[in-house]
Amino acid sequence: MGPHPLDPLTPQEISQTAKHVRAAFPDGEAYFRVITLAEPVKAEMVTFLEHEHSKGGGVESQTLKRPPRLATVQVFLGQPRDSAHFYELKVNVDTGEVVGKEQLLGRHPHVDANDMQKTEAACLGDSRVQAAIKEMQLPEGAVVKIEPWTYATDGMNDMNQKITMCYFYMKLISHPDANHYAYPLDLCVEMSGDARVLKIYHLPNGTSNDISTTAKPYDRRKIFDDSIEYHPDLVPQHRTSTKPYRVVQPDGPSFTTDGNLVRWEKWHLRVGFNYREGLTLHDVRYDGRSLFYRLSLSEMFVPYGDPRTPYARKAAFDLGNDGAGCNANNLQLGCDCLGHIKYFDGWHATSSGDPIKLPNAVCCHEIDDGILWKHTNFRTNNAVVARSRVLVLQTIITVSNYEYIFAFYFGQDASLHYEVRATGIVSTVPINVGDKVPFGTTVAPGVMAPYHQHLFCLRVDPAVAGWKNSLVVEESHAMPLESQDPSIHNPFGIGYTTKAETVKEECGLDLDHTVNRVFKIVNEGVTNPVTGGPVGYKLVPCYSQLTLAHPSSYHAKRSEFGAHAVWVTRYHDGELFAAGDHTMQSLGGEGIASWIAKRKLQQQESSAAAHNAPPSDVKNQDIVVWHTFGSTHNPRVEDWPVMPCEKMVVGLKPVNFFTRNPAMDVAPSTQERNQSVLVTANGHCS
Amino acid sequence: MGPHPLDPLTPQEISQTAKHVRAAFPDGEAYFRVITLAEPVKAEMVTFLEHEHSKGGGVESQTLKRPPRLATVQVFLGQPRDSAHFYELKVNVDTGEVVGKEQLLGRHPHVDANDMQKTEAACLGDSRVQAAIKEMQLPEGAVVKIEPWTYATDGMNDMNQKITMCYFYMKLISHPDANHYAYPLDLCVEMSGDARVLKIYHLPNGTSNDISTTAKPYDRRKIFDDSIEYHPDLVPQHRTSTKPYRVVQPDGPSFTTDGNLVRWEKWHLRVGFNYREGLTLHDVRYDGRSLFYRLSLSEMFVPYGDPRTPYARKAAFDLGNDGAGCNANNLQLGCDCLGHIKYFDGWHATSSGDPIKLPNAVCCHEIDDGILWKHTNFRTNNAVVARSRVLVLQTIITVSNYEYIFAFYFGQDASLHYEVRATGIVSTVPINVGDKVPFGTTVAPGVMAPYHQHLFCLRVDPAVAGWKNSLVVEESHAMPLESQDPSIHNPFGIGYTTKAETVKEECGLDLDHTVNRVFKIVNEGVTNPVTGGPVGYKLVPCYSQLTLAHPSSYHAKRSEFGAHAVWVTRYHDGELFAAGDHTMQSLGGEGIASWIAKRKLQQQESSAAAHNAPPSDVKNQDIVVWHTFGSTHNPRVEDWPVMPCEKMVVGLKPVNFFTRNPAMDVAPSTQERNQSVLVTANGHCS
Repeated sequence: MGPHPLDPLTPQEISQTAKHVRAAFPDGEAYFRVITLAEPVKAEMVTFLEHEHSKGGGVESQTLKRPPRLATVQVFLGQPRDSAHFYELKVNVDTGEVVGKEQLLGRHPHVDANDMQKTEAACLGDSRVQAAIKEMQLPEGAVVKIEPWTYATDGMNDMNQKITMCYFYMKLISHPDANHYAYPLDLCVEMSGDARVLKIYHLPNGTSNDISTTAKPYDRRKIFDDSIEYHPDLVPQHRTSTKPYRVVQPDGPSFTTDGNLVRWEKWHLRVGFNYREGLTLHDVRYDGRSLFYRLSLSEMFVPYGDPRTPYARKAAFDLGNDGAGCNANNLQLGCDCLGHIKYFDGWHATSSGDPIKLPNAVCCHEIDDGILWKHTNFRTNNAVVARSRVLVLQTIITVSNYEYIFAFYFGQDASLHYEVRATGIVSTVPINVGDKVPFGTTVAPGVMAPYHQHLFCLRVDPAVAGWKNSLVVEESHAMPLESQDPSIHNPFGIGYTTKAETVKEECGLDLDHTVNRVFKIVNEGVTNPVTGGPVGYKLVPCYSQLTLAHPSSYHAKRSEFGAHAVWVTRYHDGELFAAGDHTMQSLGGEGIASWIAKRKLQQQESSAAAHNAPPSDVKNQDIVVWHTFGSTHNPRVEDWPVMPCEKMVVGLKPVNFFTRNPAMDVAPSTQERNQSVLVTANGHCS
Repeated sequence: MGPHPLDPLTPQEISQTAKHVRAAFPDGEAYFRVITLAEPVKAEMVTFLEHEHSKGGGVESQTLKRPPRLATVQVFLGQPRDSAHFYELKVNVDTGEVVGKEQLLGRHPHVDANDMQKTEAACLGDSRVQAAIKEMQLPEGAVVKIEPWTYATDGMNDMNQKITMCYFYMKLISHPDANHYAYPLDLCVEMSGDARVLKIYHLPNGTSNDISTTAKPYDRRKIFDDSIEYHPDLVPQHRTSTKPYRVVQPDGPSFTTDGNLVRWEKWHLRVGFNYREGLTLHDVRYDGRSLFYRLSLSEMFVPYGDPRTPYARKAAFDLGNDGAGCNANNLQLGCDCLGHIKYFDGWHATSSGDPIKLPNAVCCHEIDDGILWKHTNFRTNNAVVARSRVLVLQTIITVSNYEYIFAFYFGQDASLHYEVRATGIVSTVPINVGDKVPFGTTVAPGVMAPYHQHLFCLRVDPAVAGWKNSLVVEESHAMPLESQDPSIHNPFGIGYTTKAETVKEECGLDLDHTVNRVFKIVNEGVTNPVTGGPVGYKLVPCYSQLTLAHPSSYHAKRSEFGAHAVWVTRYHDGELFAAGDHTMQSLGGEGIASWIAKRKLQQQESSAAAHNAPPSDVKNQDIVVWHTFGSTHNPRVEDWPVMPCEKMVVGLKPVNFFTRNPAMDVAPSTQERNQSVLVTANGHCS
């Protein structure tokens, strides 16, 4: 049978693809950056999936023609490994045919922990850097570490060359897991793509905006106690009040898996994974009915609000620059979740094209989420209560200092939630003891955590009851008073109605809770037999401030998706990344707003010719809905040394999709089944 | 020792109070509606609590003078039991002294299930009503039931008399827990306070706005199948895919209780309970530091958006009219929560003044909430992860058709969340088969669920590091470009800063996510040693549409709190209820906006006289913060027959209150302790 067309490349397919590439380009040494599945074109997948899910699909799919397995390969062909030798190939995994080849001139590949450690070593190995360290007169025993940062374009001297910013920290204890961010130093080094030192200077230390070439001796008042540590070896005492809490599932989990296919409580979905987006979901169905073709985190952007040079260059695309997949944590049993856990491994490629396992990159388990529905008949005092079981698909990534926990939650009521938890260590910079700045918080003496934003873009490729959908914007408005409009019956001034408008052209839209603005993805072709209107799913957004950087700034130009909370576009194969395909030192103008503008222009130019579906048309078309959300993170002292999770949640809920609450058949909750324990003692309980 | 001053009245105290009242008013037959604790004046409690929590407080508090135990009593003194004989008394529980007596002329007591069943019996017992039922030609075997509704003033004929609206439903099966709301009839009867029939008419059935005295025969096309049922006896088949899931706490819960005092993970709080607000929390502290004096749901309002007569009268104050306490569910082990559960009973009074137990009205238990904080050191790949244990204090109320689940969640990181889940059965009205209305959803043939709002008001009486607090409104704004303001250093247009303003006068404020508006309760007198600024807690609001009814409507006038999302007032003893003390058929003008306006007027009138703290002043004063939130609930078909919980969450989080993340001492999560189970099979798991 082989893999399902939506399955990630297997380790064998990765090896095979590398072999094909080396055979096709025998002259130059191939240095691989990416070997990943190029997902099938949707038109082919629609046919495939319709067969697969048709009656007798099991039999038919045996003989069904499968879309070819294609790989996207990013590779340096030849030396030096710079942008002139950087290519993206499309390779047929089975035949070896190279069906696409694009030179990525001016582009740079993503970085990973390996790259960062190499940069650190090269930087620390430079004698000028060592001299600059010496000038700072650090305390005895200080070990200097480097935190390399990808470079956010500021439009100066950074057009073709890859640059890495090296920020410096010291550690005062030798434990390898001592907090790396507790003692920021004011040294900064800029490194070239080929690991040469370009510039060495000292950072601003407070209210002054200026960088300097003169070192100041390290201020010993900044040395703090062990309350900055988080590793258990270094924490003097843990609280002992938290007693054990276990999840026991005597009959095992309620889900089943078959390769990457997960089935649970009427849900059907396929787990996908790639180096960039990490966890993706495909062909999501409930009770046999199609809901979503693909769900994924499209991009995230973390711009810092510190205006001083060089901090204006701190703005990370954690997917495009770093990769949620290749930075996925190896999740551990009993640590990252409770109960019965199924893990999925991810696969990536080494620079020589060998498959490398990312073990336990995704976990799948169930949680209890309290009450699903309840009703007590006050006439009899009889209560019926159903508990909410939820399936969680979770992945956790580390991008230098920060952790992000990404999880999809599937409900028995056919609702789906996407949750982001931000945790980890805030990025820190040096500050003079006693100084304050208006764009950051002092979290310890000499340690400033600058204000920044986390902007996520969730990509929702819907297939609500079919492939053609529309986006409807609905608001709740008070009816006019009769004195204002005598044709309206509203004698007591309390009536209100909804106003719905179908979005006709690709665009960005904003949230407005004051009018209860709701975004519904509907299928105009499928009528709900009870309401008489179209079936749909609604987006329950996460209310967030959008990009604060000025629209003329590189930050804003590079992260177009941050300009609006909700976007709707026409589906195009490969249009997956809301800030563009290549974000490393990107100059902007290649994100979602640019796609829309380009197609609008096409449409205007071709308006003379009659056309069934102009390129900007999104009414009753194959559409994609994108939701930008996040947090303006102005750190609290309580976010230090490791911040407690900050949660952000987005929902997708049926709205007149079914003919009643689809969870009505969940069996009521009973003590016999749940075996809770009564705490009777009025004093200390045991 | 006796009860703590903040403890609810004990059953003995209720009996004793009733005895005192009967002794004080020997002439008239006392018919009790309410006997509840009158909480001590705050000035006395501040002294008491400061002694209690001082070093050696245990010894001192033995001899400490306690505020007197006072009861608030609502009682009919004499016949008839109308507003002319309705009184509110303040009674010293121990001495019997009646220290306050107010005639509640024009006021009516709350109703409860008992009242509703009496009204139903009286209405159905009326021969004119029976004749009207007969005229509808209902299907054979139909059993007619009544849903009495409190009366939302429309300004017509309802000034002094208590009126109850009786809406009619039929049941087609005799099971006592068959869905009561599946077959709304178009009959309506208005009943007087003394159970006389005032009016009988037929409701509008669709696009027509008119009531009628002519019956139409019942349309048999409205009769539906058993998919409208929720009781397990009546559900043909439950899904069997959900396998058991148990919470096991081998060493028992992590909390201890001592009467109404709960201690858990550095938290200290007292559980309160009364017939009206239900669960209240008092003297909330973390790690010995004061945070909140009192937390409570102050009021909730459910106005319907159907403008037709008599539906404009559907607008329930579920606390003021019905009572969250006296409608609290009897929570059941293994049904309403999992794990080790401690229950608290509530106590109420019968009409004869006897104590009546509301068993298991509040439950206390722990949940696991996933990850609390995590950091993986990418240099070593070592991860440290702490799981989040949360203490839940939960109460569930039934108000006729609807259920509300109210829960406080305490976090180990000193955060506190208040969650409301709305579930139960949507209120339904009849509609002609095939008709549609713009202010409601057809959820079954002939069954329309009108649009409505749920507006909650959370009352936060803070004591952040002391009794005097201020409310600060902070926003995040982009810095000007240098071209706009050359005095600003923002060369790349990416800088942003926060702007904070302390609220000086009592007022209502609104949310604005577009500027990341944050509401901080700070103590100007206590400086955080790290940041140098005041310590504080921030309100993390629930973004919601506010009251849709026109400001000139009775709905809006009666629910003043619905006009703004955040309110700040000066503390006044007894000022607990944001829509006023007496909401039954209230005419408005006695809620939070009116208090503010009154004090502002006082202040203006006395402005000539120098005054340290004018009555409207809220800067560095004893203040109260109120948050209005909720949902505009335009029902989905999926909300029928019982709606899946809709969650709303409000947060209170430390913001520079501590000197670091207070959960850093939570021990890392280990498999040894948590004993999760690896699901290894790739196929069906077992």
